[in-house]
Amino acid sequence: MIEVLLTDPEIVALVRRIHLGDEVGESIARAAWTVIAEPGDAVAGTLIEALGAVDALRIAVGDETSLVSVGGGAVSSRVLDDGRARWRPRAEPRAVSAALRGAASVGAQLVIPGDAAWPDSLDDLGVHAPSALWVRGRADLLRDAPRVAIVGARASSGYGEHVATELAGDLAATGAVIVSGGAYGIDGAAHRAALGAQGATIAFLAGGVDRAYPAGHQTLLRQIAEEGALVSEPPCGTAPTKWRFLARNRLIAALGHATVVVEAGRRSGSLNTAGHAAALGRPLGAVPGAVTSASSAGCHRLLREYDAQCVTSASEVRELFGSIDGSVEVSSAAMDPHHTRVLDAMSTRSRLSIDEVARRSGLSPDRVRSVLGLLHLEGDVARDDGGWRRAPARRKG
Amino acid sequence: MIEVLLTDPEIVALVRRIHLGDEVGESIARAAWTVIAEPGDAVAGTLIEALGAVDALRIAVGDETSLVSVGGGAVSSRVLDDGRARWRPRAEPRAVSAALRGAASVGAQLVIPGDAAWPDSLDDLGVHAPSALWVRGRADLLRDAPRVAIVGARASSGYGEHVATELAGDLAATGAVIVSGGAYGIDGAAHRAALGAQGATIAFLAGGVDRAYPAGHQTLLRQIAEEGALVSEPPCGTAPTKWRFLARNRLIAALGHATVVVEAGRRSGSLNTAGHAAALGRPLGAVPGAVTSASSAGCHRLLREYDAQCVTSASEVRELFGSIDGSVEVSSAAMDPHHTRVLDAMSTRSRLSIDEVARRSGLSPDRVRSVLGLLHLEGDVARDDGGWRRAPARRKG
Repeated sequence: MIEVLLTDPEIVALVRRIHLGDEVGESIARAAWTVIAEPGDAVAGTLIEALGAVDALRIAVGDETSLVSVGGGAVSSRVLDDGRARWRPRAEPRAVSAALRGAASVGAQLVIPGDAAWPDSLDDLGVHAPSALWVRGRADLLRDAPRVAIVGARASSGYGEHVATELAGDLAATGAVIVSGGAYGIDGAAHRAALGAQGATIAFLAGGVDRAYPAGHQTLLRQIAEEGALVSEPPCGTAPTKWRFLARNRLIAALGHATVVVEAGRRSGSLNTAGHAAALGRPLGAVPGAVTSASSAGCHRLLREYDAQCVTSASEVRELFGSIDGSVEVSSAAMDPHHTRVLDAMSTRSRLSIDEVARRSGLSPDRVRSVLGLLHLEGDVARDDGGWRRAPARRKG
Repeated sequence: MIEVLLTDPEIVALVRRIHLGDEVGESIARAAWTVIAEPGDAVAGTLIEALGAVDALRIAVGDETSLVSVGGGAVSSRVLDDGRARWRPRAEPRAVSAALRGAASVGAQLVIPGDAAWPDSLDDLGVHAPSALWVRGRADLLRDAPRVAIVGARASSGYGEHVATELAGDLAATGAVIVSGGAYGIDGAAHRAALGAQGATIAFLAGGVDRAYPAGHQTLLRQIAEEGALVSEPPCGTAPTKWRFLARNRLIAALGHATVVVEAGRRSGSLNTAGHAAALGRPLGAVPGAVTSASSAGCHRLLREYDAQCVTSASEVRELFGSIDGSVEVSSAAMDPHHTRVLDAMSTRSRLSIDEVARRSGLSPDRVRSVLGLLHLEGDVARDDGGWRRAPARRKG
C-alpha cells in the first residue's frame, strides 16, 4: 500500500499542500497511520518508533516481512499478527486520499513529529503518542507556552461555568493557551472565555476536524478554527466514538503544562483527563465546590485520591506550572523523559555517535537523532566531527 | 503561699470536694497554677515538669531559692525572674480559694495529670500543656475515643452550618466525641448536632466554666454541661480574652484525634486551631466550598498550605483517624511521645529502675513514673522486684 501512496500523484500533491515540510514519504505514511490505526494503538506506536512510519507501514499492511526481524525486539509475531488483522481492513489508499482531501477542503494541516509545530509534550506518551495531528487554525499554538488544560463536566452548574470563565479568561489574557475538549459545559466556557479575552485556545476533538461535534458548538468550533486551533488525531471524516473521546483525553493532558478540572461529577470524563495528567506527572489542579453539590464530587475525589492541588484563582493555577513567561518550554529536558535519558547518556567530555547514545540510553537511534536535534537547537548538546557531547552546564533564564 | 494553701482547712476541704483522688497537695498546687499563670506559660510548664507542681510553686511565688538549682537546668535565672514577676501579683491564697469555691458552686471538677480522666493527648503539648483542667459535666469524655474537633467560623453560612450539622450528627451518632469551642456559627452547630444525636460533646471555653460565653449560647452551654462536658484551663471567674481564645485553640487541637475545619474565612480563628493540629501531627481535614464564597477561603488555604485532607462526608472524617472503634486510644504510645521515649529507653530483657529510665529517656523521674503506670495498665511494660522492663512484643487488637 505504501508504494501506491508514495507514487500516487494526487496524494503527493495533497500532502505537499497540507504539510509544511519536505518529508513527503514520512508525511504520507503518518497520515495513513491515522487512517488505519485507532488513537493510542501501542503496537502501531512501537513499530513506528522502531522502524519509522514508512517501514512500519510496510510490514503492517504490506507483504514485507524481512523488516520484522529489524523491529523484531519491539513486538512479538503474535502481537504483530493481531495488529495486521486490525489495520488491513482499513488499509485502502482511497481512505488515505479521502482523508487528505478532507483536510485540504477545510484548510487543515498535517503536523508530524519533527515539524516546527509538533509539541514535544506529546512524546511523553511514548508508544501511545499520536502518529500525527490534524490541525485547523494556528498550529503554532501547539508549541506556545504555557498551555493550561481546563476541563470539566458537560453537565456543569452556573457555578462551574462562572469559575471556568473567570479562570480561562484571566489565564488567556495573561498569555496562557487554554486547551480543552470543545464539549458542552466547562470546556465550552473555557474556550469562550479565552476567545473573549482575545487569547489563544486549542480544542482537541475526538472525531475529525471537519466535523463540528457537539453540533450545538458549530459556531464556537468554527471560531476556534479561525482564531485558535482545532486539533484531532483521527483524520477528517472520522466520527467521534467513546473510545476516541477517552483517547483524546490523553492528548489534552499531555499537551497541557498543567491540567485543571473545574467541575466534575463523580464519574465525569474529565477525571479520565485528570488521571492521564497525573500519570504523566503533569501538575493537576481541582477547583473545589460545595460538598452538597454532586457536580463537584469529582473534583473533591481528585483532591483526595489523586493528590490534586486545590486551586481557587487564576494566580493559583499559574503557581501550578511555576511561571507564565514561557520558560516551561525552554527546558524541554525537564518536561520530556526522552530528553533526560539522552542527556543522561552523554558527557561533556567524550564525543559519542548516535548509535552509542542509543545503546546507552535504551532509545532507538531515530529517537536519539530527533532528540539530539532538539537539544542542539536549545544549546544543550554540541556536535563536531568526533560526534555528540553535552554542552557545558549553563544557567537557564 | 503554698504552705498557706496546703494548711488552709477550707481549701483542703474544697479540693477534696472537686478533685477525685487523694493527691491533695498536688491538686491544690495545680489549681493554684491555673490561677497565677496564663494558659500555655512555658516557663511554668517547664518548672512543673522539672520539680512537680508543689515545689514549682514554692520557687515561683515563695522565698524558696534552694530548689532553683534542682530545676536549674530547666530555666535560666533571668527567665525565672520574669516568671516570678508575672506570677507574684496573682499569688493570693484568696484567689485560689475563690477559684475552688467557684468550681464547687457550679459542680465543676478539677482534673490533673495522672487522674483517670486526664487526656494523655494533652501531654503532646509538652511544656505548653495545661497544669490542670476545670470540667463541668462528664470528665470521662476527655479520654473517650475517638474525639473529633469540629471547628469553624463564627460568621458561618447556611452551607457551613448545614455541613457541620451533618458531619457532627453522623460522627456523634456513631460514637465519636465532638470537641469544639462553644462559639457561634460552626462550633455551635457541631455541638447542637452532637447533642441532637444523643452523642457526646466537649466544649472548650476560653474563660472559666462558670461563665457562659458567648452569652447567646447560655442555654446551649448549660445543656453541654449537663449532657457533655464544659472544659477550661483558666479557673472559674476568669473572663475570656483574645490570648485565652488562642491558647484554648491548642487544647481543642491536642484533644482531638483529628481536627476538621468546616468553614472558615481567610483569617478565621479556626485556622489557628488547624495550625496547632498540624503542628501536633494530628490529622487535619478541611471541608471545601465554593471558591466564590469568602467563608470557605480559609478551608481552601488549609488544603493548599497545610496539606489538610479534603473531607466531604462523615465517613471521610472517620478515615482521617483510621477507625471509630476506640483503637486509637489503645495504643497510647503511638499518640504520646513521652510513652515512646520511655519505651525506647527500656528493653525486654534488662530490668531498670525508674531513675535509670529517666536518665536514658531524658524525662523526669516523676514523668517516667506516671508513664510507666499507664504503660503498665496497657500491658506494655512489666514490673518485678528487679525493676521495670518492656513486655514482649504482642499483636494489638
